[in-house]
Amino acid sequence: MSDVEFVGEKCGVISMARKDPIPFYMYYALRAIQHRGQEAAGMALFDPDEKKIVCTKGLGLVESIFRRRQMEDLKGSMGIGHTYYSIRLSKPENAQPHLIKTAVGDIALAHNGIIVNSGQLIQELKAKGHAFVTDTEEEAMAYILAEELFAGNDIVKAAKKMVKRLAGSYALSIMIGERVFALRDPLGIRPMCLGKFKDGSGYIAASESVALDVTDAELIRDVAPGELLELKPDGIESNIVGSLENKSYCFFEHVYFARPDSVIEGHSVYETRKSIGRVLAKEQPVKADVVVPIPDSGRAHAQGFSDVSGIPMAEGLIKNRYINRTFIMPDQKTRDMSVREKLNPVKSEIAGRRVVLIDDSIVRGTTMRRIVKMVRDAGAKEVHVRVGSPPIIAPCYLGIDMTTRDQFVAVGKTIPEIEKEIGADSVGYISIDGLISAIKLARNDTCLGCVSAEYPIKIEGEKERFQQRLM
Amino acid sequence: MSDVEFVGEKCGVISMARKDPIPFYMYYALRAIQHRGQEAAGMALFDPDEKKIVCTKGLGLVESIFRRRQMEDLKGSMGIGHTYYSIRLSKPENAQPHLIKTAVGDIALAHNGIIVNSGQLIQELKAKGHAFVTDTEEEAMAYILAEELFAGNDIVKAAKKMVKRLAGSYALSIMIGERVFALRDPLGIRPMCLGKFKDGSGYIAASESVALDVTDAELIRDVAPGELLELKPDGIESNIVGSLENKSYCFFEHVYFARPDSVIEGHSVYETRKSIGRVLAKEQPVKADVVVPIPDSGRAHAQGFSDVSGIPMAEGLIKNRYINRTFIMPDQKTRDMSVREKLNPVKSEIAGRRVVLIDDSIVRGTTMRRIVKMVRDAGAKEVHVRVGSPPIIAPCYLGIDMTTRDQFVAVGKTIPEIEKEIGADSVGYISIDGLISAIKLARNDTCLGCVSAEYPIKIEGEKERFQQRLM
Amino acid sequence: MSDVEFVGEKCGVISMARKDPIPFYMYYALRAIQHRGQEAAGMALFDPDEKKIVCTKGLGLVESIFRRRQMEDLKGSMGIGHTYYSIRLSKPENAQPHLIKTAVGDIALAHNGIIVNSGQLIQELKAKGHAFVTDTEEEAMAYILAEELFAGNDIVKAAKKMVKRLAGSYALSIMIGERVFALRDPLGIRPMCLGKFKDGSGYIAASESVALDVTDAELIRDVAPGELLELKPDGIESNIVGSLENKSYCFFEHVYFARPDSVIEGHSVYETRKSIGRVLAKEQPVKADVVVPIPDSGRAHAQGFSDVSGIPMAEGLIKNRYINRTFIMPDQKTRDMSVREKLNPVKSEIAGRRVVLIDDSIVRGTTMRRIVKMVRDAGAKEVHVRVGSPPIIAPCYLGIDMTTRDQFVAVGKTIPEIEKEIGADSVGYISIDGLISAIKLARNDTCLGCVSAEYPIKIEGEKERFQQRLM
Amino acid sequence: MSDVEFVGEKCGVISMARKDPIPFYMYYALRAIQHRGQEAAGMALFDPDEKKIVCTKGLGLVESIFRRRQMEDLKGSMGIGHTYYSIRLSKPENAQPHLIKTAVGDIALAHNGIIVNSGQLIQELKAKGHAFVTDTEEEAMAYILAEELFAGNDIVKAAKKMVKRLAGSYALSIMIGERVFALRDPLGIRPMCLGKFKDGSGYIAASESVALDVTDAELIRDVAPGELLELKPDGIESNIVGSLENKSYCFFEHVYFARPDSVIEGHSVYETRKSIGRVLAKEQPVKADVVVPIPDSGRAHAQGFSDVSGIPMAEGLIKNRYINRTFIMPDQKTRDMSVREKLNPVKSEIAGRRVVLIDDSIVRGTTMRRIVKMVRDAGAKEVHVRVGSPPIIAPCYLGIDMTTRDQFVAVGKTIPEIEKEIGADSVGYISIDGLISAIKLARNDTCLGCVSAEYPIKIEGEKERFQQRLM
Repeated sequence: MSDVEFVGEKCGVISMARKDPIPFYMYYALRAIQHRGQEAAGMALFDPDEKKIVCTKGLGLVESIFRRRQMEDLKGSMGIGHTYYSIRLSKPENAQPHLIKTAVGDIALAHNGIIVNSGQLIQELKAKGHAFVTDTEEEAMAYILAEELFAGNDIVKAAKKMVKRLAGSYALSIMIGERVFALRDPLGIRPMCLGKFKDGSGYIAASESVALDVTDAELIRDVAPGELLELKPDGIESNIVGSLENKSYCFFEHVYFARPDSVIEGHSVYETRKSIGRVLAKEQPVKADVVVPIPDSGRAHAQGFSDVSGIPMAEGLIKNRYINRTFIMPDQKTRDMSVREKLNPVKSEIAGRRVVLIDDSIVRGTTMRRIVKMVRDAGAKEVHVRVGSPPIIAPCYLGIDMTTRDQFVAVGKTIPEIEKEIGADSVGYISIDGLISAIKLARNDTCLGCVSAEYPIKIEGEKERFQQRLM
Repeated sequence: MSDVEFVGEKCGVISMARKDPIPFYMYYALRAIQHRGQEAAGMALFDPDEKKIVCTKGLGLVESIFRRRQMEDLKGSMGIGHTYYSIRLSKPENAQPHLIKTAVGDIALAHNGIIVNSGQLIQELKAKGHAFVTDTEEEAMAYILAEELFAGNDIVKAAKKMVKRLAGSYALSIMIGERVFALRDPLGIRPMCLGKFKDGSGYIAASESVALDVTDAELIRDVAPGELLELKPDGIESNIVGSLENKSYCFFEHVYFARPDSVIEGHSVYETRKSIGRVLAKEQPVKADVVVPIPDSGRAHAQGFSDVSGIPMAEGLIKNRYINRTFIMPDQKTRDMSVREKLNPVKSEIAGRRVVLIDDSIVRGTTMRRIVKMVRDAGAKEVHVRVGSPPIIAPCYLGIDMTTRDQFVAVGKTIPEIEKEIGADSVGYISIDGLISAIKLARNDTCLGCVSAEYPIKIEGEKERFQQRLM
Repeated sequence: MSDVEFVGEKCGVISMARKDPIPFYMYYALRAIQHRGQEAAGMALFDPDEKKIVCTKGLGLVESIFRRRQMEDLKGSMGIGHTYYSIRLSKPENAQPHLIKTAVGDIALAHNGIIVNSGQLIQELKAKGHAFVTDTEEEAMAYILAEELFAGNDIVKAAKKMVKRLAGSYALSIMIGERVFALRDPLGIRPMCLGKFKDGSGYIAASESVALDVTDAELIRDVAPGELLELKPDGIESNIVGSLENKSYCFFEHVYFARPDSVIEGHSVYETRKSIGRVLAKEQPVKADVVVPIPDSGRAHAQGFSDVSGIPMAEGLIKNRYINRTFIMPDQKTRDMSVREKLNPVKSEIAGRRVVLIDDSIVRGTTMRRIVKMVRDAGAKEVHVRVGSPPIIAPCYLGIDMTTRDQFVAVGKTIPEIEKEIGADSVGYISIDGLISAIKLARNDTCLGCVSAEYPIKIEGEKERFQQRLM
Repeated sequence: MSDVEFVGEKCGVISMARKDPIPFYMYYALRAIQHRGQEAAGMALFDPDEKKIVCTKGLGLVESIFRRRQMEDLKGSMGIGHTYYSIRLSKPENAQPHLIKTAVGDIALAHNGIIVNSGQLIQELKAKGHAFVTDTEEEAMAYILAEELFAGNDIVKAAKKMVKRLAGSYALSIMIGERVFALRDPLGIRPMCLGKFKDGSGYIAASESVALDVTDAELIRDVAPGELLELKPDGIESNIVGSLENKSYCFFEHVYFARPDSVIEGHSVYETRKSIGRVLAKEQPVKADVVVPIPDSGRAHAQGFSDVSGIPMAEGLIKNRYINRTFIMPDQKTRDMSVREKLNPVKSEIAGRRVVLIDDSIVRGTTMRRIVKMVRDAGAKEVHVRVGSPPIIAPCYLGIDMTTRDQFVAVGKTIPEIEKEIGADSVGYISIDGLISAIKLARNDTCLGCVSAEYPIKIEGEKERFQQRLM
């Protein structure tokens, strides 16, 4: 997805339990899920000498936060980790894991997702006398857990009570003292999977299976929606702490968020994206000479589209990998340069040809409009846009931070209007049915909020898809 | 005092209320008390637009934390500030003010002093269900205040209850929402004074009057021991929230901690130090040719000593102002250099003469031993040491972080033994009576813990001087 | 090419002349050739107010050296720029452009290439009384140019004399006072092209055409081997300052160095790489199920291979884009992780299949061995390696810094021995003839030093391919 | 001197030769002369393994340039060092020592002083074909030395020739290959002294004797004006390379520049300053209650003034040592604060009293005016200013960078006019005769340029004091 404005609370989490020290394992696992968040990162480890959780975190990439010398000082074989993504101004104190010290022990928590009722929960907790340091939903969850444990519940019961109080999406890595847990919300909105280290030394849970690959762990299965998993060096203990008839897996993980080499809900993300391309080629056929992916996210979709359509694929747009910061330029001329330097066409593949541009999704449409223009300027005879997800018409409240509908190019527009807006000869989206068939998840178990405006959770002013009760 | 090992929880605090924006006032006030803490600094300001307290803080000097650009972003006319000193490893999250968000509003707190019963308080708070983020005594105080306010007490009553629960020394700057307070412990251990801006725009309370000088405020009086002062742009409101018959002002502020241009408890620190020098000259006379201060802290004492003794004073030791960090050197030769580069003798003032070295205090004695040797190597015929405080024989639990008695050179040694240890021809300390007469505070209102081993507060394993009850 | 050890003096250069200020144009042009050097960068601009060349440079990426605020201070409409690549320890003073101030004016020089006789030239210049500040070949070239100009030669004649004295590869951007030049060695070893800004405001010469794309300039032609081009806002002036019958274009620019969206010697790099893949498929056919490129450099080759062989292509290896630094790990386990985190297989595309891995080249072979193992571990039934350049058997003295033959896996080994070393079921290289046909350059105009051990220039201990004399 | 605008090319130099490694010795010696320059620093050491001079330098304080880890990498027992002071914008390449590589070996040079004819020398050198990298007078001197050596002169003869070509002030530390030298201009304008390490391992020459103190070296004597000294681990070799009848020692080193614990031309700087104070008290008596030095530079002068006048001295102005940077404030109010935070009065010593303020010199007068006002605001009944140098009425071309006469408060003003300008009840300067008597140098051997407008060297548009020819 080349719409850089489409950012959200992706984040990545890791839970890890081994017989031997894990700092380097955690480091590698965090780098494997760095794509889920580059704002901040951290790890909380149980220090066996000091008998407490030590949390090290900061702003920036994993590799800039954890330096060689510091890594050597880190200790512990039980821990959790986090990579953080936020569109809000980053503050060092918002980095995770969030650690609190309580009468029931140290509690550390790392979160991927969004708690829809966090405002209300924070208010309730304050009304009971709780004081907040960060005002984050992670602090609220830590306090809720502490409260339930403090009330005398064991951890499973406390987790059950917490699940009842939370509305929203959450894949959580939790430490209570030296015990390590993974917890996934009953709808399974955000992904989380379980792995076993191949050397038999322990277990790992992670947002994506690539964290298992890099630490030489074998993917066992996904953490089940509503499952609380305790990870120990020599085994796991599973408890279902909240169950719903229908799940609500986020399709966007498959379409764009996750790394292509990850396996989610049993399906290779790369294969799913190729399938999407194949379905798209059938649903939205076009006569053209070349299929060009928007790198890097559109590449697998384009492969599938090319396979079915028989139109050859070419890397017609090349990404400059060295652009991190861009100045906001004083004039139009340099503004054009700044667009051009991120993506540059291979004219020989484009000039005089009918080009199919493939991307995973279109949100605001501004970037796609610029790319279409760039491809035309490079001499394309026709430019057709094919999109690997249905039109995005509603905000996501469960992991992507888009607040208003008027940002979406597809809202209230017909396809011809979108074509005009984007400047393409044709625009074709995959259908919801087509998407579902490619993802191979049950329609009723897939969150389609952003493309259907129906949500799996009660959200003020929005339509609730099903009304479900925790079992 | 040249014994660099003798560091402690000095810290400095500022409370400020004006009609107009205060960020620059706060900046200057904090730099004026930078000598009380160089580890970290911060300011909490009530943002009038966002209706909340915004806290900006970090590790390092005030000038490195607050840059021009950031200063321009800061807003608010009500605020508190802090400069932090610690011998412990500095962590960004321990910088103050400490800010919490509660049902009774935002509470920010900046502290100078030590809470003797903080361990117990933290345990009690946790036992009630409170979760700690930093485990500091400042967090404990903020929670206690929140708890008392939450219980329905007004601020004065809440402060009274807090004072009852706290044992130790504390000069506090407090914000509750947009209200700004200053609070001094009933013993008055750490200093705090009140000033009025000369332009009539508001009030300031600060650890030392130099913060008033630099912000063009007039010193009105000291904050009274046990007084809670609310500062408003147009007035102050005073309430005594805890009262004791005898105070316990720290004499060390007068002898060494405070800036010489400060006025504490109504007395010019510079004049007090000169008086100490005068008394010392009478109590510990010596035949000598030149009086040499250990710069910078011994200079005023030396002036007084010279005045009374008639022995001329000379700047016989020169300090290199550019030495911040020193490598720990691999060998003895470079170790000697590293001592020498901080202080260097003016041989012409020393060679062939009988020298009186004047310092404010001797703690471990190691630095003084090196200086005596250096002065002898420079050709001094005799070296006599005169000290502006009585022998330090016991730890301070109320502001200086010395844990064990065996660090002090004076413990268990006779004067001849100390002379031998230090290598001086004679060593003379001021007597406690002499000190009291120079400081002009009542003996019973002065904390003499470190020179008498009797403390104003019950401390496990130590002798309590008086048993007092809050009135 | 995934062999990260195979680095060299790639570097990139820019010459630019416009009617209006160029600092931002230069910035964008430099970022477009950032892939040619990430160690250091700089730009030299003629300051029209101070009437002198001002050079700004430093270590690091273009974007970290040139900050917004500093960019706004830069002035001038005539200038040159450089991105620097070096395997040697980076020193700030080695960043380019190199600027000297002489009686014939300020001279600035930026270089891509290697001067084979630089040691001798430096010695000769010193013997004449020249003093060196950096001992670099760039300083030597600047002195030679100054010397020839000082001797009374005009610039064209001075350039001719310089060309006679230099042996080696060089694409040079040169400023003499406010005049801007581009100069390419008579063999044309390193690339350089000329563009005209589409708004008619001036000219640009650059190592690669991507710098023209991003600054909205049109590619006119390559700078000819042996051509000295003066760039003016309103025109160009061309002089041939050295001519040889046979050129010696580096084929490695086409195979690996250049960006795929560049056009070199009239040929699209992307198309050339696809052609290489096609030839490779014909020369080295294999029965397999999937073609997997080593990202990113092998992707175009793989596309061509897939097109001809009919074996479908898949992105079976995914690159983690967030890995910059890697710790050298204490043990084997974490060393394996560190390999794995850079590239990770998509198992669904590999397991149970016969895989063809495509890369542009193999140098040391160590990385390829690790990748083959990784692909086998992911379940590949067979692993076949196909390589887009002939076996590398000799050092490059003209742009790539490989000192000894024993580093190359192909030296002295038969194909079966290489297969064994790498662990592949088969290894197939493109032939030199096949490569030549794909690159579409005359064989006698192509430098094949590293694959033939015959060099276009006399190099001590190596065979010279042709003996040519400057015309 | 509290006029911070009065800055100049002070700089400090070190030459060192020992039997054992010197990096740490050099580090300590440089820190001892840090007050002579805080802009940049560096050291050049002969690397015995690589057989060449390695130069390490950078912007900032010695301690920030040389870190522990890097210090451990430095090698060599022969070297030179430099601390740099400049009012011009600092550029990394202007840091010294300046190192060049020539046919006669590596030459490194560090300079304190100003070469009056440097513009002409640079022009001449360029006219001979020399190319400059930095356009500094240090580069010019290095080239001249190289040129003379290259012409076949031995070092002594080359130095003689260089001395003939240079007009201006220079204390130089020079390395030629592994040989280390010190050279002082024939007028002896800038100071330099020679020391012998007490352990017998070698020799050191330095701008000030404090560098000897800290490295455990004994002061032998000053380097003679016009003397070239070679320093070897086991001895020194002296040659006079330029001799004049009259010297021209800068009196400002004694009055303000040098550290008080230095010994220059055989006289303790501290004692000289006290003498100045004594003479001043006799020449410019005043009835007053207290003598207050402007810290830190006026302290010794004040001591002398107090001794003779019998008026007690007090530290009535306290300096805040933590102020490095100051924002330029938007309004008058904060501008006043920024003055006040650097110096703060001790009111108890000032209020109601007749105060004598003592400073070493007055240049622009702006700072003194602010201080006089501050002292009056603190309640002084009268404020009398006494100054340890005669009125400054002319620029210094030999070490202080003041370009125009209209900056000086004393130019064209009578004493009553100066009193009015500064706001003092009286102003009294020491006379030139008085100064000479206190400094104990022959009047004809003292440079009085800035107070007499007569210079020891021909300067365009200024009066030359004597016409002297090198002998």
